[in-house]
Parts: sequence; C-alpha cells; structure tokens
Amino acid sequence: MNSNDSSHQVEESKDIKETTQALQDASIDEPTSKKAQKKLEKEREKQKRKEEVAARLAAEKAARESTANDFASDNYGKKPLNQSQERTYQNRKAIDSISAKMAGEPVWVRARVQTSRLAGSKNCFFVLRQSTLTIQGVVSIDEDKVSKHFLKFAGSIPPESIVLVHAQVVKTEEAIKSCTVQDSELKIYKLFTLSESKDRLPFTIEDASRSERFFADKEDTVNPQSTEDEPSPDSSLEKEKKFSRVNLDTRLNNRIVDLRTITNQAIFRIQSGVAQFFREFLLARDFVEIHTPKIIGTASEGGANVFKLNYFKTSAYLAQSPQLYKQMCVCGGFERVFEIAPVFRAEDSNTHRHMTEFMGMDLEMAFEEHYHEVLDLLDELFVHLFTNIKNKLAKQIETVKEQYPFEDFLFLPKTPRLTFPEAVALLRENGIQQGDYDDLSTETERVLGRLVREKYKTDFFMLDKFPLAVRPFYTMPNPGDMNYSNSYDFFMRGEEIMSGAQRIHDPDLLLERANLLGIDASSIQPYIDAFKFGAPPHAGGGIGLERVIMLYLNLGNIRRTSMFPRDPRRLEP
Amino acid sequence: MNSNDSSHQVEESKDIKETTQALQDASIDEPTSKKAQKKLEKEREKQKRKEEVAARLAAEKAARESTANDFASDNYGKKPLNQSQERTYQNRKAIDSISAKMAGEPVWVRARVQTSRLAGSKNCFFVLRQSTLTIQGVVSIDEDKVSKHFLKFAGSIPPESIVLVHAQVVKTEEAIKSCTVQDSELKIYKLFTLSESKDRLPFTIEDASRSERFFADKEDTVNPQSTEDEPSPDSSLEKEKKFSRVNLDTRLNNRIVDLRTITNQAIFRIQSGVAQFFREFLLARDFVEIHTPKIIGTASEGGANVFKLNYFKTSAYLAQSPQLYKQMCVCGGFERVFEIAPVFRAEDSNTHRHMTEFMGMDLEMAFEEHYHEVLDLLDELFVHLFTNIKNKLAKQIETVKEQYPFEDFLFLPKTPRLTFPEAVALLRENGIQQGDYDDLSTETERVLGRLVREKYKTDFFMLDKFPLAVRPFYTMPNPGDMNYSNSYDFFMRGEEIMSGAQRIHDPDLLLERANLLGIDASSIQPYIDAFKFGAPPHAGGGIGLERVIMLYLNLGNIRRTSMFPRDPRRLEP
Repeated sequence: MNSNDSSHQVEESKDIKETTQALQDASIDEPTSKKAQKKLEKEREKQKRKEEVAARLAAEKAARESTANDFASDNYGKKPLNQSQERTYQNRKAIDSISAKMAGEPVWVRARVQTSRLAGSKNCFFVLRQSTLTIQGVVSIDEDKVSKHFLKFAGSIPPESIVLVHAQVVKTEEAIKSCTVQDSELKIYKLFTLSESKDRLPFTIEDASRSERFFADKEDTVNPQSTEDEPSPDSSLEKEKKFSRVNLDTRLNNRIVDLRTITNQAIFRIQSGVAQFFREFLLARDFVEIHTPKIIGTASEGGANVFKLNYFKTSAYLAQSPQLYKQMCVCGGFERVFEIAPVFRAEDSNTHRHMTEFMGMDLEMAFEEHYHEVLDLLDELFVHLFTNIKNKLAKQIETVKEQYPFEDFLFLPKTPRLTFPEAVALLRENGIQQGDYDDLSTETERVLGRLVREKYKTDFFMLDKFPLAVRPFYTMPNPGDMNYSNSYDFFMRGEEIMSGAQRIHDPDLLLERANLLGIDASSIQPYIDAFKFGAPPHAGGGIGLERVIMLYLNLGNIRRTSMFPRDPRRLEP
Repeated sequence: MNSNDSSHQVEESKDIKETTQALQDASIDEPTSKKAQKKLEKEREKQKRKEEVAARLAAEKAARESTANDFASDNYGKKPLNQSQERTYQNRKAIDSISAKMAGEPVWVRARVQTSRLAGSKNCFFVLRQSTLTIQGVVSIDEDKVSKHFLKFAGSIPPESIVLVHAQVVKTEEAIKSCTVQDSELKIYKLFTLSESKDRLPFTIEDASRSERFFADKEDTVNPQSTEDEPSPDSSLEKEKKFSRVNLDTRLNNRIVDLRTITNQAIFRIQSGVAQFFREFLLARDFVEIHTPKIIGTASEGGANVFKLNYFKTSAYLAQSPQLYKQMCVCGGFERVFEIAPVFRAEDSNTHRHMTEFMGMDLEMAFEEHYHEVLDLLDELFVHLFTNIKNKLAKQIETVKEQYPFEDFLFLPKTPRLTFPEAVALLRENGIQQGDYDDLSTETERVLGRLVREKYKTDFFMLDKFPLAVRPFYTMPNPGDMNYSNSYDFFMRGEEIMSGAQRIHDPDLLLERANLLGIDASSIQPYIDAFKFGAPPHAGGGIGLERVIMLYLNLGNIRRTSMFPRDPRRLEP
C-alpha cells in the first residue's frame, strides 16, 4: 500500500481511516494488501449507501412539505407513535388468508416493507412481508385516491418499515414468482407508516435470503466444519458483483434483522414445533415435566467444563446437565420425567456443532426388566419427531430448502440398532481402523453414518453397548462382559445427537465405580445418597435440540439453529 | 446444663457428643438449655430407631439363613441387581388399573413398600405405593405358597424398598380408608425386593404425608410469611407425642424422600400440567416458542440483582429475565413469542415467595391497535389455565387438599380489570391509605385482594394503568396522562403473579426514558438499537410458574412448589 492510497482513504471517510488502523491490528492469515482492498471496497459501498439514504430522506422531507394542498393527504403518511390511544377493532388480515378467491375485496394489512421500487412516474411496487409470507403491493396514481405526493411518499419509505395498508385484492394475470402469495396482489389506496426503519440496514433482507444455489460453485459452502461461511476474498469478488452474500458472523451480529428472513422464520418455527412434539409424545406416556436447578452448589461431574459464579458470599456453578437431578427425581418417585432447559458447558470448543449454552431435551425413566424398554420408547419418540416434522412442518421445510438446499432426511419406521462390536466390524470391513474398546472419533462417526446409510437406507440409527471405559462412572456395566456397558448414542447424518444409558441405581456399585475412575466421592455424596432409599432400575438420555434441527435440515452450523448463540467468542447480542 | 448431664450424653452416642459441640456453635435466639433438651430428645429417638434397624437386620439375616429347607423359597427373596440381564416381557400392572372388577385375577406389580406390619403370627400387611396411588397388600401363611420364612422375610423389608409382587386381586368387604384403592387389595403369593432401602429414612413417608388438619390448632400453620413451618419447640412437644411433623427445611434437605409423598407427586404433576396448558393455548394462537440466552454479556437492567460468572477470560451475567430478548424476537419478525425458562435473581430476599432461581412463563406479542388486545388474550389464557387445572387435574387437587386443606380458588369467565385509580379508590373507601402514584406494598396488595374478592367473588383480577414512576424505563407511558402507564399486574389471592406492559417500541423515546431514569445508555445500546429497523407496537408479561401453583393451592410457601428450590441460603441438594 503506498502513501497516496492511504491519503485517499482518509479523504473518503472516517470509517475508512479506521479500517487502516484495523488492518494493522488484523491477523496475518491473509496478505494485508488484499484484505485492505476488500475492506476499502466495502467502505466505498457503505459510503454510497449512506448517500442514497440521505437522498431518500431529502425526498421524504420535500414530499412532506408539499402535501398541504394534496387531495389525497388523508390517505397516506406517518402515524403517530402507538401508545394505545384508541381501539377501533379494525379488521386486519394476515397475508396467508389472502388469495385470488378474495379478488375485489377490500382489506387492511399490517406488514413490513421488504422492498419498494418506483416504476416510471405512476407506479410503486412493494414486497410486503409477514413472518414467512410475502405479497406484492402496488400504488398507482389515480384521480381520487392516489396523488403524486402519495406516490412519492410510497417511494420514500425505508425498507423494513412497518406499514398499514388499505387495499383491494387483485387476481394477477401471471404468477408473481418473487412472493409467496403468487395468485394475487394488493392494489393499495391507503398507506401509513406505523414504525419507520430509522437506520441503514446492516444488509438487505434479500441478500440475507438468497438461496445458496447461487453460490453452489464455491467450495467453502459445503464445509460444515467452518464456524464461518464467508467466502474467501479471492474467489468471491467476481460473484459478489452479482450477489452479495451475508456471512454468518455478520448475521449473528445483526440477528434482529437476520431473523426476519423467511428462512429464519421457518427454522425457528421448526424448532418450536420439535420441542412440542417431544413433549406431547412424552406427556401422553405418563412422563412428568420437571424443572431442575441450573445453579448448583458443587461442580458435580469433576469440575471441568463448568462455569463458576458468585453466589452471595459463596460460589456456585452452572449445571452442565440435569443428569443427577433427573435421576434424583426418579429416586423421588417420579418414574418418568423429562426437561427441556438450557445446559451450560464451559468448553473452549470452537466447532460447527458446539455452543457454551444450548437446549437439552432430557428424559429419564424407570423400566421394568431391561433398558431396551427405554430404547424402544426412544425409537418411537424419534420416529414421532421425524414424522411430525415431515408432515406438520412441510411448508417450513420447503422454505428452508429454498435457501439451503438439502437431501431429504431418511428414517425408518423401526430404527436400526447396532451394537458397538457390530459397528466396529462394519468399519473394519470398509477398511477403517477402530479399536474394540476405543471411542469413535468425529470422523469415524461420520464414516459410520455413511456406511449405515448405504446399508440400511437411513440417516438415523442407534449405537448400543459402548465400551464401559469411554462412558461416565454412573453407566451400568453390561451383564456378563464388563468391557461393555448398557449405554447408547443416537446419530443423525453421522453426527451424535443423543447420548444415554442405563444408570447404576445401587449406591454401593455407584461408589465403587466412582472410586475406580478416581472421582472424589465427597463431591458426589448427595447424588450417591439419593439411591440409598430404594431406586428402580432406570435409563434415559439427553438430546441436543439445536443439533437435531441442524442435522435434519443439514444446515452445517449449529449457530443457524440458535436464536442468540453463545460460544467461547460470542456473548452478544 | 451440669457436668453430669454432659457426661451422660457422651455415653449415649457419638451423635450426641456432636450435638454438644453444635450447641456451642448455635445461634442464640433460644435459651441453650431448651434447645439442648430438644436436641437430646431427638438424638435419643435417633438412637432408638438405630437399634430397631439393627434388630430388623438381624431378623432378616436369620430368615435368610434358614430358608434352605423352605418349600416356599422360590416365592420370595432379594433379586440380584438389575443390569438388564433378561427381558421376559412380564406384564406388570399399574395400581390405578386395579379395582374390585378384577377380583380373582393374578397380577404382577412393582411398587414401593410404604409400610409393612406383621399382624399376629400369620399375616403381614403392606401399604404399596406408586406415585400418587396406594393399595393394601397382604401376605398370609398358607400350605403351599407362603411359609413362615416367607412371612418373616415380608416383615423384614425396610420401608421405601421397591418390591415386585405376584398377587391375586381380592375385593374387600369394607373400604380400606388408608389407601387410595379402597375396594380391593392384593393377596400376595410371591414377593421379591428389587431395590432395598439401605439407610434409615430421615422421616417416614407417613409423617411427611400427614394432613395439616392434625396441626390446625397451631398458630404458625397459617403464617405464610415464614420460610419455615417448624412449630416452635414450646408448643409442639405435646402434639409431637401424637404426630410427628416434618418441617420444611428437613423436607428440602431430604427432598428425594419428601418428593415421594402423594401430595408432592400431585403438586409436581399439577406444575407439569400448567406449563403444558400454557403452551397449548399459545401455540394454538400462532405463538412461537423461543429459547433466549441465559448467559448474557452485559448486566442489562442496571446490574443490581444479577449473578456474575466467569466466562473464559472475561465475565458474564445470568439473565434476570428474558425481557430484552423476547422483545428483540418481536423486532426480529416473530410477532408472538413465549418462553418457559429459568430466571435468576441475585436478591437477598428471604420470604415465602422469593427464590433466586424460578421458572418464568414469559410471553410477548405485537398488537394491532391497543395493548388491551394483549390483556384480552392474557385473560383468556388464565381462564384456560384455571379451567384446565380444575377439570383435568381434579384428582391431583383433591390429593393436595387432603394434606393442605384450602378454599377453592375463585375465578370468573371474564376477569375483572381495575385501573390503578379505581384500586386506590377502593382501598380508601375501606380506610386504607394509598398514594395516587405510589406502588402497592405487599400488605396493601393482600388487602386489595380481599376487597376485590368480596366485591367481585374472584381470587383473580388484573390491575391496569400503574403509575409510570414505579415501572421500568421501557414501559409505555399512558397517552394523555403521563402519570400513568400502559402496564398491569395480575393477582391471585392478593399476591402478584404476573407483571407486564406495553413496551416502548420507538428507539428515541426509549433512550429518552432511559436517560430520564438515569440508566447508562451504553449498557443498553444493543437493546435500543433493536428498535431502529422498524418495530411493531407490542406488549407482554412474565408469570412466575411456582407462584401460580403456590397460590392456586394456597400452599403458603413457594418452596413447596419448586422441586429443588434455591434461595440465598439454599444451594443444596
């Protein structure tokens, strides 16, 4: 970078000056000149957009000033701040209730302006949005309702403002492909802003909503390991001229805007649905929903990976799982319990599938004879979840697919249940090295997922009888062969989404196992004591809600399925 | 206390020696001699029970040794630890499926032994329990199935052990009043212990289950302010000879045992039900369930009452409400959202209704014209909750009433909605002083609850239009009169269970109000920024789940409706 370039930046804007400083602070994984160039380009783009906003504001002001003698002045404008001044019981429509069948009918609609576009001197086209739905609106100059001033006002509304329109439903000649409502549009006669977008958007909703198909030739798109999905600067410049792409960190930094894409609206409706399917299934089978404390007095499972907090004059910890408490509930006479609640992990893992706070769907149940009773129930549970996602959330799934295309998730009415030795054999048959009693690596899990998919035509399977040595101390050893245990993991698309086991329900054996694994008994004494007054045999598991959604939709990064994700580097917003 | 007494204690037991030490450390709110006497008495009682247990164990051992030549030896005994050795698909019955209609049928039942009682030399009576249900079981000596050894074994089973019985259902001549199944009992022919209670119980389930009616003449029973319900030592000694009473701290210290009472089994089934009624109602009205972060980067509402934690190399805080996040979701395009999640308050409040961690049932929704749309929905929501509790949880309610008698909770199909000035007028009419713009004290709330009950025949009402000065900065001022605000509290039996409001959805007004109230704008900048890109008018509220249950059931202490309560003095279990 020569000094001329540098001075040029300073003239352009203060932001660009800051960029120069930032460059000096930047990491060195990229040649500085390239980075600077890209940043500079971004700043110029920023500057340009600022000027556009200024021009728009001036137009708006001019429009306001000249409305005095306007015959249509009652039909448009800015509404005062809603402080609940009045209640007229106005009947406002949801976009999903509008179709060509209503042609000719007048409607009131409150919606967001996704885009507005003045076309010639007589028309202004809108894309109006409500959650996952969009409809076209059009303001056209006419003699008694829409004046020039009205049109100007319409064209000056900043995107993402909330408007109230009075319109006639009109059947369209051709399908409007850019909107979800395609057979009709709104011919607008009244248009009021209820809440204006006051600041420049960090990115447009259209950029944030663009299908990954447009970027499909980029290799980094399919790398699910990356916590970022920004294309590398070299390959993207060409493409960016045509389409802006919004990287994940930018999305998350501006999550309020990002959440408004119809894709995100769909993702979090799917998440909401899955939790409810989970609960409905369990409540219908006599499970009781419990709420166990997240603030705990002792770091129960050894103290690693636990967040410590100040608790009045002492210290406390955040529960890294409801494990001990849900078992205590089983000992407390609740034979079948579940909980959906945040779990906290102070792990410095910066991967596509780890967060420091996530939603655990946990359950625990007493069984009569064999922990496979619990596996049977879990099998039914997951088939219930997948079937309901497929049937009841089909529209949302389609919406997500539009932006993030994925292969349908395969599952079977009865889930394949491999034992650990069977999995080891399958891996070895295919040339993968795997020790008999070693845990599976993430990569081996992925391969196993592929092999099981080929063999059984399913993206979902259970792996039973893990080696005892790789499971927590409270895992029930396998009867007969102590090398194994009565424990299991479930996998979706080759990634673990649930871990569970029959637990030791005898206090003496529990203590023995804890001692053997070098766990300080005093730190888990209340837990061990819980089993002293009679405990039924029981098993259970914990499911990561965000992981289930990520893998069903094949989204590649767990942060896409958490509204406000938390990881070692992210605490905001 | 003289030295003789002291030496006598040492002889009695090590525990009593420790008591002496404990006495020296004890607080001074009671004369030492009285406390010592009571403690001593307790220790002697303890010693006595220990001896009983030892005797029982000896009997058990003798029984085992002499079973060698027993014709019935296959019909009873201790089963080995269940490690899921086998699965026979044995059909086991739930107690609630058993009635006189099944007379003559053989059944297998797994249950807990609540009590066992040898009657004469030929019979042993059991109370067998599964969650909220109990049934009588009887082992009687006969020629080919039940031997003397069998009977001895039956009598030796420690209470709270889990047993598997094979029995015939027998219609009873007279109703068995001590059990929930009254028209039939189990004539037991096989009896196995699956998991023995290995330690002396901290209290018997019968003591912990005894109806408060037995203690009704004690004045402290009706004091809901107390965080403890232990009778004062002076007044209780007489009564305790007849009935042991288990105080709340003892219950909570031994929660695993305490949770087994049918009352607690019912309370937490009611809690589970209420959360699901809440969700079903909202999901049916297009609400989306959200999960907002509990670990937050800045102490958002001023920093008081917030728990601080270590977050890798920096600090973080526990969310004291999902307020800002649920509003951000509304700004993010989710028009109607709810969340049921723990909220954390670092308040040093040691009252009957405060906990440092409790379950918040939060909701937030955009409205069209007036925040009373939200109040209307909330009205319907609560009527839905109360109606469902009454109808669908009637059995559980009756169970709780048996132990904690209470007057039925009154509510109306349409909930009375008082304005703050109306409430002030009502209070003044009845001689209560209340400033126009002052908040209500806890005591005034209670009085107001009584007055509203008299006037409207309801234990539930809404109080609207609180003075602006007593509400948070984000509360929307009342249009017209800035002394008031568009905010509301809901009350059950004169205690607040929900607080809510229309929120300010304009960033400029929000900033203005924050400044006026002396809140550092920088600490809430991300929150204010959330409103810059268009925000719909919205309102919502937060409901304390445990409070709703406590007040509906009139339980007097919130700790009774939290499985593992947390307060400034309690972090365990």
